[in-house]
This record gives sequence, structure tokens and C-alpha cells, in this order.
Amino acid sequence: MTNEVVIAAMLAIGDELLSGRTKDKNIGHLADILTAVGIDLKEVRIVPDEEDRIVEALNSLRERYDYIFTSGGIGPTHDDITADAIAKAFGVPCEHDAKAMKLMGDNYAARGIEFTESRQRMARMPRGAVHIDNPVSTAPGFHIGNVYVMAGVPSVFQAMLDNVIPTLSVGKQLLSRSVNCPFGEGAIAVPLRDIQAAHPDTIIGSYPKYENGKFSTELVIRARDAEKLIAAETAVKNMVEQIASAIPAR
Amino acid sequence: MTNEVVIAAMLAIGDELLSGRTKDKNIGHLADILTAVGIDLKEVRIVPDEEDRIVEALNSLRERYDYIFTSGGIGPTHDDITADAIAKAFGVPCEHDAKAMKLMGDNYAARGIEFTESRQRMARMPRGAVHIDNPVSTAPGFHIGNVYVMAGVPSVFQAMLDNVIPTLSVGKQLLSRSVNCPFGEGAIAVPLRDIQAAHPDTIIGSYPKYENGKFSTELVIRARDAEKLIAAETAVKNMVEQIASAIPAR
Repeated sequence: MTNEVVIAAMLAIGDELLSGRTKDKNIGHLADILTAVGIDLKEVRIVPDEEDRIVEALNSLRERYDYIFTSGGIGPTHDDITADAIAKAFGVPCEHDAKAMKLMGDNYAARGIEFTESRQRMARMPRGAVHIDNPVSTAPGFHIGNVYVMAGVPSVFQAMLDNVIPTLSVGKQLLSRSVNCPFGEGAIAVPLRDIQAAHPDTIIGSYPKYENGKFSTELVIRARDAEKLIAAETAVKNMVEQIASAIPAR
Repeated sequence: MTNEVVIAAMLAIGDELLSGRTKDKNIGHLADILTAVGIDLKEVRIVPDEEDRIVEALNSLRERYDYIFTSGGIGPTHDDITADAIAKAFGVPCEHDAKAMKLMGDNYAARGIEFTESRQRMARMPRGAVHIDNPVSTAPGFHIGNVYVMAGVPSVFQAMLDNVIPTLSVGKQLLSRSVNCPFGEGAIAVPLRDIQAAHPDTIIGSYPKYENGKFSTELVIRARDAEKLIAAETAVKNMVEQIASAIPAR
């Protein structure tokens, strides 16, 4: 049994995202993937490497959304506090996971690298957590309850997400069509509002672009029903053509 | 009189950021600028074009931070609901602002474009709001209380922010130095933790990179005091050199 709509949130963790040092690449990637599979990303928060802020944000999000995806803070250094914070949010101990210890221990042994205390930190998880495989660099992410905890390094985040996606319940995909409109929003706002009102089961978004001193607009129609999508798209296209024929080219 | 620390949050508004259609460019830009002037960005939220979600996030953020910066949702179309939502959050009416009506009316008149009802929508602001000039496309942003409301189009967001920054109170700048470390985090985690413990007035972040099948690490030291910054940076550099001399090149 599938729900029509499955909703999710993302919690991106890391001082570096808030200082500007690192420009996040995971939010947009997660958004793309979730949209493609039929999960609606409804909120994102970015918080610093501070336990109380992570716990608070996570507890606020996890009761509200079907799935929460986190990025960052699961490495071996002192500023990697995500596993502890997640354990705290769930009220369970954070401890070395036997399966992760074995997996990582074998991997380091095969490479002739010492499996130090700090490397073992990456095998710590909230009690009851389930692994998310990491084909890039071994140290696993994990999920507990509806929370999926992944690395911040984009290649690792993406690889972990690839492993998570097939395990999720998905909703009916939100289909979308895009119509380019060579006019600014001011020229289309009234008829577009009327089209939105006439097509209540669609979501029509208007996205202005400003290039070479001129505004244009991308109109995006979204709906879970293909017929309703096409009907609204047709109305939007007709509107753009009507305005084009009424406004002399500039 | 300046506070040592001034803290801020960002609220990015728009379905397009959550669907993946648009990859946000404003968060990283705001983070860079605030860090440069001495304001600490401590939280970011991205919410959809839904009034109750905007109101809730804004009210939660504005009592917690010195400044809130918003992006998106101030155009003329039906999905631009930011001004109404901000007015609702502040409990004031959202109405056509006389100064904005004049400014925009004159601008459209000079260009021979009709100042339609939908274009007039962009002159609506919460009562008591103060303009943020928009040198790119005239329609102003606004601020009310500690909330600064700006456009989502990056060139307009950036131009508005340039006008806002000189009006803000700033704290003591968080200085930062970066040390490249050719080893993965596992090799440095213990000595780095000790350096962090020995330099409590600094924030030491460790950021792994994964390129060409190999991890390396960027170590970022931040502090408001230049001497403490240099002391911690020196300790970090010495640590990297010590490890380099102990580990054979691979």
C-alpha cells in the first residue's frame, strides 16, 4: 500500500556550509533524486556542528516528515558529532557497531593501515541503527527510524543515497512540464493566476530570469495526474502565445 | 557599542529550490559576505511557497537571531507570497507602499510599459517596512524589524544585499586560516583533537576531500583573536609536518 504523497526533509550539518567555505552540493542533488522517484522534499535546514542545534532540528523534522536525510559530520575528527547527536535525539547510546568495526577493520588491514581509535570513531552509531553501505570509502552511514545519516563529501553522499533510495516507500511522482516565456512576470501574472485557479490540482510556478538587462520567465507546471498536467500546460502555452501576438517584439 | 558576536539566519523561500529545478546560489553568497563583514550565519532554512510554513519558520528564526535574510517570492505572480507571509508573521497588514508605487510607476511610465495590477503587487509590503533599493530591476525589497526581504534572482539578491550590508551592526570578524593536509582524517584525528582542546578560543574544522581515489583534508582554523588564530594555525602546521615525516610518501 503506497501513500499518494511521501514527504521528506534534509538536515545539512556543518560550520563550513554556514561560513561560505564550502558551497553545498548535496541539497540540489537530493532534491533532484527525490523528485525523480516520487518523494517531495518539503524543507531543508542547515545547522552548525553544535550538538544541541542538531538534536533540536532533527527532533523537529523527524516528527513532521516521512523521511529525514542528513549530510555531514560522520568522519573521525573531533568536529564530527553527528552520530552522537542523532543518538541523543533518539535517546539511545552511541556505540561502536560490531559489523562496522569488522568491515572497517578488515578494510584497513587489507590496506596495511592501522585501525586507530580515531578511525574506529567512524564505526560508532546509535544503538539499533542499520548500515548504509559506502562503496567509496567503506565507513558506512546509517539509518535509525526515519532518519538517514550520510556523509558530507558529495561523492560519498551520492553513493550512499543510491543505496538508500531503493529501500524507501515512494509516492506518486510529481510530474512537471516547463514552458519558456519570453516576457517578464509582470506581463503574465494576471492570466497565469487565472490558469492556476482553473487548474487546482496542479502547482504552477513562475521563475523569473534576468539576463542581458531583460527579464524572461520559466513557467513550471507540476501535477501528479498526467492529464491534468497536460491540460494546464496547454493553457499556459496558449497564454504565452496570446501575449506574444498582442505585444510587439522588442 | 558593538557586540562581539552578531548572529544571523537565512530563510530561502521557493518550491523550485526543493524540487531541484533551481540550484540555490544565494545561501553561499550570503555566507561569504556575512563572514567577511563579521556576522555569523548560524542557520539556514529552505521552505516551500506555503504561507503557514513561511510564517512559522520566520517567527521561529526572528526571535533567535539578530538578523534574518530571506530570498525569493517577492515578484508579481500568484506564487509570490513572501510579502503577505512576512506581514502575517509580524501581525501587520500587507499593503501597497506609496513610495514604491511612485518609484515603480515612474519607472514603467518612462519605459512606456503599463503599470498593471500585477506589477503593482511588487509594491506591496508589510505596513512599517523600509525599502531595500533594487538597482537591477527597480521593484524594491524591504526590511521590517530584524528581517531583510530580498529577491530570489541571484543578481538582484546580491545587489539588494550590497545595499543592506552597510546598514547592519557587525561583530568582531571571525578570522580564518586554512592548512592543506595531504592525509585523510583518520591519520590526524587524535592530534587534531588535542590541538582543539589546547586552543579553546578557536574553532578547528576538518574537511575531507576525496579526489582520484584518495582522501586529503583541509584544516580550517577560525578565531576572533588574531594571536590565538596564529598560535593554533602554527600547532596545526607542525602536526601536519610531524605526520608527514613519520609516514612514508604513498
